[in-house]
Amino acid sequence: MSERRRHRERRTAGGVHQPPFRQPRLRYRPIEVISADQLEAIHQASLRILAEMGMEVLLDEARDILKGVGAEVDGLRVRLDPALVESFIGVAPESFTLHARNPDHSVVVGGDHMAFCTVGSAPNVADRAGGRRPGNFKDFCGLLRLAQSLNAIHLNGGYPVEPIDLHASTRHLDALSAVLTLTDKAPNCYSLGKERNRDAIELVRIARGVDDATLDEEPSVFTIINTNSPLKLDNPMSQGIIEMARRGQVTCVTPFTLAGAMAPITIAGAVAQQNAEALMGLVLTQAVKRGAPFVYGGFTSNVDMKSGAPAFGTPEYMKTAMMGGQLARRYRLPYRSSNVNAANTVDAQAAYESVFALWGAVMGGCNLMKHGAGWMEGGLQASFEKMVLDADLLQMVMAFLDPPVVDDDALGLDAIREVGPGGHFFGCAHTQERYETAFFAPMLSDWRNAQAWEIAGRPDAYQKAEQVKDQLLAAYEEPPMDEGIREELAAFVARRKEEGGAPTDF
Amino acid sequence: MSERRRHRERRTAGGVHQPPFRQPRLRYRPIEVISADQLEAIHQASLRILAEMGMEVLLDEARDILKGVGAEVDGLRVRLDPALVESFIGVAPESFTLHARNPDHSVVVGGDHMAFCTVGSAPNVADRAGGRRPGNFKDFCGLLRLAQSLNAIHLNGGYPVEPIDLHASTRHLDALSAVLTLTDKAPNCYSLGKERNRDAIELVRIARGVDDATLDEEPSVFTIINTNSPLKLDNPMSQGIIEMARRGQVTCVTPFTLAGAMAPITIAGAVAQQNAEALMGLVLTQAVKRGAPFVYGGFTSNVDMKSGAPAFGTPEYMKTAMMGGQLARRYRLPYRSSNVNAANTVDAQAAYESVFALWGAVMGGCNLMKHGAGWMEGGLQASFEKMVLDADLLQMVMAFLDPPVVDDDALGLDAIREVGPGGHFFGCAHTQERYETAFFAPMLSDWRNAQAWEIAGRPDAYQKAEQVKDQLLAAYEEPPMDEGIREELAAFVARRKEEGGAPTDF
Repeated sequence: MSERRRHRERRTAGGVHQPPFRQPRLRYRPIEVISADQLEAIHQASLRILAEMGMEVLLDEARDILKGVGAEVDGLRVRLDPALVESFIGVAPESFTLHARNPDHSVVVGGDHMAFCTVGSAPNVADRAGGRRPGNFKDFCGLLRLAQSLNAIHLNGGYPVEPIDLHASTRHLDALSAVLTLTDKAPNCYSLGKERNRDAIELVRIARGVDDATLDEEPSVFTIINTNSPLKLDNPMSQGIIEMARRGQVTCVTPFTLAGAMAPITIAGAVAQQNAEALMGLVLTQAVKRGAPFVYGGFTSNVDMKSGAPAFGTPEYMKTAMMGGQLARRYRLPYRSSNVNAANTVDAQAAYESVFALWGAVMGGCNLMKHGAGWMEGGLQASFEKMVLDADLLQMVMAFLDPPVVDDDALGLDAIREVGPGGHFFGCAHTQERYETAFFAPMLSDWRNAQAWEIAGRPDAYQKAEQVKDQLLAAYEEPPMDEGIREELAAFVARRKEEGGAPTDF
Repeated sequence: MSERRRHRERRTAGGVHQPPFRQPRLRYRPIEVISADQLEAIHQASLRILAEMGMEVLLDEARDILKGVGAEVDGLRVRLDPALVESFIGVAPESFTLHARNPDHSVVVGGDHMAFCTVGSAPNVADRAGGRRPGNFKDFCGLLRLAQSLNAIHLNGGYPVEPIDLHASTRHLDALSAVLTLTDKAPNCYSLGKERNRDAIELVRIARGVDDATLDEEPSVFTIINTNSPLKLDNPMSQGIIEMARRGQVTCVTPFTLAGAMAPITIAGAVAQQNAEALMGLVLTQAVKRGAPFVYGGFTSNVDMKSGAPAFGTPEYMKTAMMGGQLARRYRLPYRSSNVNAANTVDAQAAYESVFALWGAVMGGCNLMKHGAGWMEGGLQASFEKMVLDADLLQMVMAFLDPPVVDDDALGLDAIREVGPGGHFFGCAHTQERYETAFFAPMLSDWRNAQAWEIAGRPDAYQKAEQVKDQLLAAYEEPPMDEGIREELAAFVARRKEEGGAPTDF
């Protein structure tokens, strides 16, 4: 067994048992919360937004590219004719493989495949013992190690927490090096100026040990482009689209359309605006390079009516997650949604908002689940324990997504006959043969009876998550990496640091 | 405004704001986890179970009734020919109204309607301040008051906790009197000997102020019949079916088929057995009275592989909940499922298992949600705080089930045009007009930022639920009842107590 294989198969580490790394597929029909007519009405409204209002695109190069394919440019404002938008639908691939440096961890994005990411971009980090603190490189690396250890996590979804103790000009170099060495799952990069995109693409190429031409053919890193809702696209976002699309890397355009703040207070209006902004992103990526991998991102939620604070995992969130999926399928594009909540601690609220968000995203046909594990506080906090809890939730979702087996063996009529009225199935052969693998075994759920639980000190799920986190971190092993590659990565980082890193005035 | 109306409209009591009492409808397409062919295979397996193995039916009267419609009776064993079973499909109503003594609280059971019940039959009760204790009449009444106060709860789902301090021979009289006076929502009764069914039906008739003939036409009380899985039906269960069906009251036959214990360890086998037992119940009710209201109950879960303890809200539970719904729809019957979990405290586990269970039940097309609010510990504990938390979850589910509005107003193109690129929607007329009602406002979710939450003492959702529970109980008002009816209820209870109550050797 190769070392890689051994790593992949490590289902029990530090005494924690997990199912192996695998991608779930949505074999059930996604939920449609709006009718075909209503879907068409939203599509048409988005086309009108793009044709009549357009968007402000700040980057000259982006406006030139858009003009080049027929957009109407008036100052910073870019308007798209409906026919122009329609001509770019069906150009991007319905699905593609996102290559990891460990091929066993490459994932399919699109179709009925689903891939789960870590939390990304939280400014603060917390664990149960140490409390909440500003993001830093030590915790950044700790979260990477934990994410690498959790088989439910398929992708790095950005910096799990912002390592603000690293200088902004070179942070991307150290941070992405850590992602590429401490984990062997595919990475995300930030679009904060074209130099950072270029550095990221080069680091990923080195880590994968491939040449430029191969990398251009094999998507190996993805970026999230958040439009500046409403209706604006700033320089780093446009640069990110251009740099990534040019190299055949993955762009996920995700308008963050908080209904009542950056978008209309009505769900339909917020989604129409989200859709218009995502379509502008689609046109720009495909204008840069036809067929560049593109993910349709939906991230419409609502605000708390009392305070104006963003809310997540709400009924409105569930509906917009499903509407986003309907739109992405209409455009035959992979769909990105998120596992979100706005709780301050790993309590019942954190769990119910997360599972409601998963219900919306998964049944909405999500292909790329951003913030799949570790997100708290509406994105302001990355939590070690929540990452473990979410990994358990994601494994449960995967088990649910395995359709039931219905065949003669499973129907078990002989066992029912053997046991007969009033008997029990514990001892029968049908049970004994399947006993150890019949059901999903979660990491956290405590199913002891009240007496046993009392004697154990009445632990709650937060405490159990802490314990599992400690076990996993203690058992963590860095995934193998060729020494030559390790040196080449270090040399590239050293050279770019010497050159001064990337500009910070993006 | 009538007093009743005033009560119904009490959306804010004790400072707690709730949406009004209303029934949700499932306007989305339920999820199908098995194909039409697989559904047919389970149906056929169930027919074979009933034809080849049959069930043990302990009550002579029940066997006679079944024999009368063509069943093959051999000692205690009753076998049903497939054609006989098929002849009873489509006989029971697809939906019916379950009448409450307050007509505003009557609910439709079946079709795309959903109704949520309180927790039923827990032997223990807990609250955050007082801890866990054996069931008793004081807490029983407290839980009834809380359930009456929560608009998300449509029905009494049995004794929320078993009042074991009441003598078994007369417990049903005091308990059901309390249900009928402290709440005005429709009741459940237990099938523990025919005398108790008869007493319950009479108490319900008195409380509704109608005559026997009206009651026989208007379902006003429901009972849960748990077959003694595998393949057995004991005396009180058969008596319950006979007494309730005869009077046109509601029978919900729910096999409790724990996979690997009372049913095959395989999901398909457990559901096939569940289905066979439910169909036997259907045939018996319809043989007693054609067209008697019947609910198809599904309650297949799995055991913990390590300890054999029952587990709930698991991936397997979600799938069986959905398969049960597919079967119920095939038979055009209302479908019962449950909101369940196996947690010992109101933590993240309690929440995630509950929301997973709701995901399975709701998207499975559940019409009658038993244990909708307050269930803990796999049914061994009724929790005051969990009842509040569940009511909030159920309200979120209801809000999710309201399909998004997509029309010109909602699409809000004028607002998008008015705000323009880079602006915000807080102040625009489109937002201001809808500000107060645009989004669902939960009772518990704490969306404050970390600093405000810290200053407030870092409360978790369990503490918030306790606070809301206290506020609701302090503001509780007994629903109005005609004095004559109150006296008649008391007189009936007194007379039946004098007669010695009901036998305890059922």
